[in-house]
Amino acid sequence: AYITKEAIPATTTDGPVAYAPGLPAIVDNDTVAIRVDVQHKKITVAEGVSFWAWTFGDSVPGPVLRVRVGQIVKFTMFNRSGLTAEVSPPMPHSIDFHAAMVDPHDKYRSINPGEALHFQFTANYPGVFMYHCGTPVILQHMISGMTGMIIVEPKNGFPGKVDKEFTIVQNEFYLKQNDSMYETDVNSARNRQPMFVTFNGKYKQYVQSPLEVKAGDRVRLYILNAGANLTSSFHVVGTIFDKVWLDGNPHNELRGMQTVELGSSNGAIVEFVVPEKGTYAFVDHSFASVEQGAIGLIEAK
Amino acid sequence: AYITKEAIPATTTDGPVAYAPGLPAIVDNDTVAIRVDVQHKKITVAEGVSFWAWTFGDSVPGPVLRVRVGQIVKFTMFNRSGLTAEVSPPMPHSIDFHAAMVDPHDKYRSINPGEALHFQFTANYPGVFMYHCGTPVILQHMISGMTGMIIVEPKNGFPGKVDKEFTIVQNEFYLKQNDSMYETDVNSARNRQPMFVTFNGKYKQYVQSPLEVKAGDRVRLYILNAGANLTSSFHVVGTIFDKVWLDGNPHNELRGMQTVELGSSNGAIVEFVVPEKGTYAFVDHSFASVEQGAIGLIEAK
Amino acid sequence: AYITKEAIPATTTDGPVAYAPGLPAIVDNDTVAIRVDVQHKKITVAEGVSFWAWTFGDSVPGPVLRVRVGQIVKFTMFNRSGLTAEVSPPMPHSIDFHAAMVDPHDKYRSINPGEALHFQFTANYPGVFMYHCGTPVILQHMISGMTGMIIVEPKNGFPGKVDKEFTIVQNEFYLKQNDSMYETDVNSARNRQPMFVTFNGKYKQYVQSPLEVKAGDRVRLYILNAGANLTSSFHVVGTIFDKVWLDGNPHNELRGMQTVELGSSNGAIVEFVVPEKGTYAFVDHSFASVEQGAIGLIEAK
Ligand SMILES: [Cu+2]
Ligand SMILES: [Cu+2]
Ligand SMILES: [Cu+2]
Ligand SMILES: [Cu+2]
Ligand SMILES: [Cu+2]
Ligand SMILES: [Cu+2]
Ligand code: NA
Ligand code: NA
Ligand code: NA
Ligand code: NA
Ligand code: NA
Ligand code: NA
Ligand SMILES: [Zn+2]
Ligand SMILES: [Zn+2]
Ligand SMILES: [Zn+2]
Ligand SMILES: [Zn+2]
Ligand SMILES: [Zn+2]
Ligand SMILES: [Zn+2]
Ligand SMILES: [Zn+2]
Ligand SMILES: [Zn+2]
Ligand SMILES: [Zn+2]
Repeated sequence: AYITKEAIPATTTDGPVAYAPGLPAIVDNDTVAIRVDVQHKKITVAEGVSFWAWTFGDSVPGPVLRVRVGQIVKFTMFNRSGLTAEVSPPMPHSIDFHAAMVDPHDKYRSINPGEALHFQFTANYPGVFMYHCGTPVILQHMISGMTGMIIVEPKNGFPGKVDKEFTIVQNEFYLKQNDSMYETDVNSARNRQPMFVTFNGKYKQYVQSPLEVKAGDRVRLYILNAGANLTSSFHVVGTIFDKVWLDGNPHNELRGMQTVELGSSNGAIVEFVVPEKGTYAFVDHSFASVEQGAIGLIEAK
Repeated sequence: AYITKEAIPATTTDGPVAYAPGLPAIVDNDTVAIRVDVQHKKITVAEGVSFWAWTFGDSVPGPVLRVRVGQIVKFTMFNRSGLTAEVSPPMPHSIDFHAAMVDPHDKYRSINPGEALHFQFTANYPGVFMYHCGTPVILQHMISGMTGMIIVEPKNGFPGKVDKEFTIVQNEFYLKQNDSMYETDVNSARNRQPMFVTFNGKYKQYVQSPLEVKAGDRVRLYILNAGANLTSSFHVVGTIFDKVWLDGNPHNELRGMQTVELGSSNGAIVEFVVPEKGTYAFVDHSFASVEQGAIGLIEAK
Repeated sequence: AYITKEAIPATTTDGPVAYAPGLPAIVDNDTVAIRVDVQHKKITVAEGVSFWAWTFGDSVPGPVLRVRVGQIVKFTMFNRSGLTAEVSPPMPHSIDFHAAMVDPHDKYRSINPGEALHFQFTANYPGVFMYHCGTPVILQHMISGMTGMIIVEPKNGFPGKVDKEFTIVQNEFYLKQNDSMYETDVNSARNRQPMFVTFNGKYKQYVQSPLEVKAGDRVRLYILNAGANLTSSFHVVGTIFDKVWLDGNPHNELRGMQTVELGSSNGAIVEFVVPEKGTYAFVDHSFASVEQGAIGLIEAK
């Protein structure tokens, strides 16, 4: 890895990235350039609950990345936290890709505000992987929002044809009130007592705006439990997962599953058929998590 | 689904149902009629600890149901909660079968006291599935007792011959004292801090009355972690699971397991041989759960 | 099993035992004699944090044992707790091997201070198994330090060749201060709120003294989550597990995993290649556990 000082770009990302529940298009090359910058940004988790998050790209969780087995990923990250110094103290950040096999001491190093980090890795294994900031105190960086999903497709894509695909990252928010804003609360994070548990970063957002499918569709979900602490018992009401690929690797197939248990930083691909028109909820079947926000709807027309 | 108003039957269930640790006989037809009513009923969890539960059938957890892949299940549920209005406020309830593939918005609708719900589904996948009330606040309905197990057998039954079979549902109780009775406590449920964790609904009941087998028996357990929140690390002291079928599907086989980790709403079938005469404890190997009641005995003569 | 009263031996163990992260040599016989005694001993978990632990052998967790499928294990355990009566009340103890198939009522009986327990078992299944004291209150005995790992190799050893092997036991400490010492705290154990979560019993010990490997090495870790309560989301930063064998049985293979979720008392064998020179952290990716000590380093020269 090497560090440079360059003019900060206008946008916070570049390359095959998208915001969940979408998937980025895949780049059909031997190498793929991806840039995901770090910034400090005010994020709203639920109505009336905002805090100064530390984000990859523009959201919590960060953007979904998508590459292919065998591709060389040329990665760049600017630390933009100096741009918001008047509202949030700038600080070093880093990035750790679970999809990479590299020396963390080198590639996952922390960079200062104003610096840009550059390294490359080859994606060796297909799957749904986590990325996150690895700068100490890591727990603090993770609960501040610095997590996301990178999908690595097999060389010929994931086997089987599906009608709809969505990406869903579950994570916990540990917050406490501070005047009209909220701030992260390391104490409740150490006690594993979240204030919110969300899909793609917003309390019950897909109850308000369901994911849309058609009756009879085969649906594939790329899911990641970004933690920082709890397991997720991911379940879709009204259907059964005919395939579950643990950590997103087709070799790790379970069939006919009602629920998939994901450890903190486990991913999965789940597929199911939508049996008829209707409204199908997806939840973390630890129902305390549902109360804390981990519920969404899939509307089948 | 459709709703009717009819005379409430004398009994609370009909069809292939049994109370755990038993298994119902299977009905050998293309269709099978099952009725499980909802009532409000005083339930005793441990000595001196009773509360007004909301139950399927007559117990917490509800009765075990058993059907076969390909069968059409014609299901009926009366909401009998009006019958105990003087001691427990009547209210709407519903039922969600993890074994079904249907529109939840239609089939899993809430019905009022005095109403009867009717719908049907086809059992597509073999396994050990959860059912539960899905009426908001779902967490409240689940911790009030509204969970149970439905077994779906493969068309030719589960492979292999066993000598003894039992059903075991683990669930958590979140209670607080209110005069001489107890009542459910949503706060401790949200904090994932149970008062009791039990097998088939009663604190250490199988320490008092062990399950009975013979030395040399091959034993099959149908187990379900009904939550509402925690994982279960199910273990039998003194033997090893030679087969574990995750969510009860023979395709998902693990071998030689000491412990099976079940997410909230995961089931499993485990098989083991009883090596010699003796007393074998079964536990949730999260030992806080054992202190809270999740221990039983198997006595081998 | 039978109990004797004999002179207490000079050392606390005999046979194929080693202290983690090491592995004992395997004995190449049809039978193997192993002795692991119980004692009460002052143990230091972190700087300034010592308590009177109840230990197998000389450490918390106890020594790693290693046998082979088909071997008859002739086991002996002295209860040495009477030797430290002036500082820690002597008491009965026992041992429960998850690798054995025996009547717990007989073999896992409690013995008094000054007694020696003798029993034998055949190791039937390959794997990474837990052993622990099973004397009530078991939760108290487990959090006092009475847990360890026993490895059972297939008859021809575990398949595949590796360059380096280490053993890692994760466990939780539930302590509270008592003057200049600490003591176990059953209350926080019942609430599943540990003070420390460690690898091989010492807070962040492998951050101070990393495990040493070479770039390009294929590394095999024998891991055990001894609990007593939480799951472990075991992960190595900078690489991917190309093989995971759940509970250490090669039939239960997952591939290309970023993280393996271990229930309380689940083991696993994980293998990975060290891609280049560098420093690779291993963690419980529930990051509260990292704050509580569950982080170590692997240094690749
Ligand atoms: Cu950071
Ligand atoms: Cu459900
Ligand atoms: Cu209900
Ligand atoms: Cu045990
Ligand atoms: Cu003991
Ligand atoms: Cu990580
Ligand atoms: Na959970
Ligand atoms: Na479902
Ligand atoms: Na648990
Ligand atoms: Na056992
Ligand atoms: Na955990
Ligand atoms: Na990694
Ligand atoms: Zn540059
Ligand atoms: Zn492959
Ligand atoms: Zn609908
Ligand atoms: Zn009717
Ligand atoms: Zn099949
Ligand atoms: Zn006995
Ligand atoms: Zn002797
Ligand atoms: Zn084999
Ligand atoms: Zn380095």
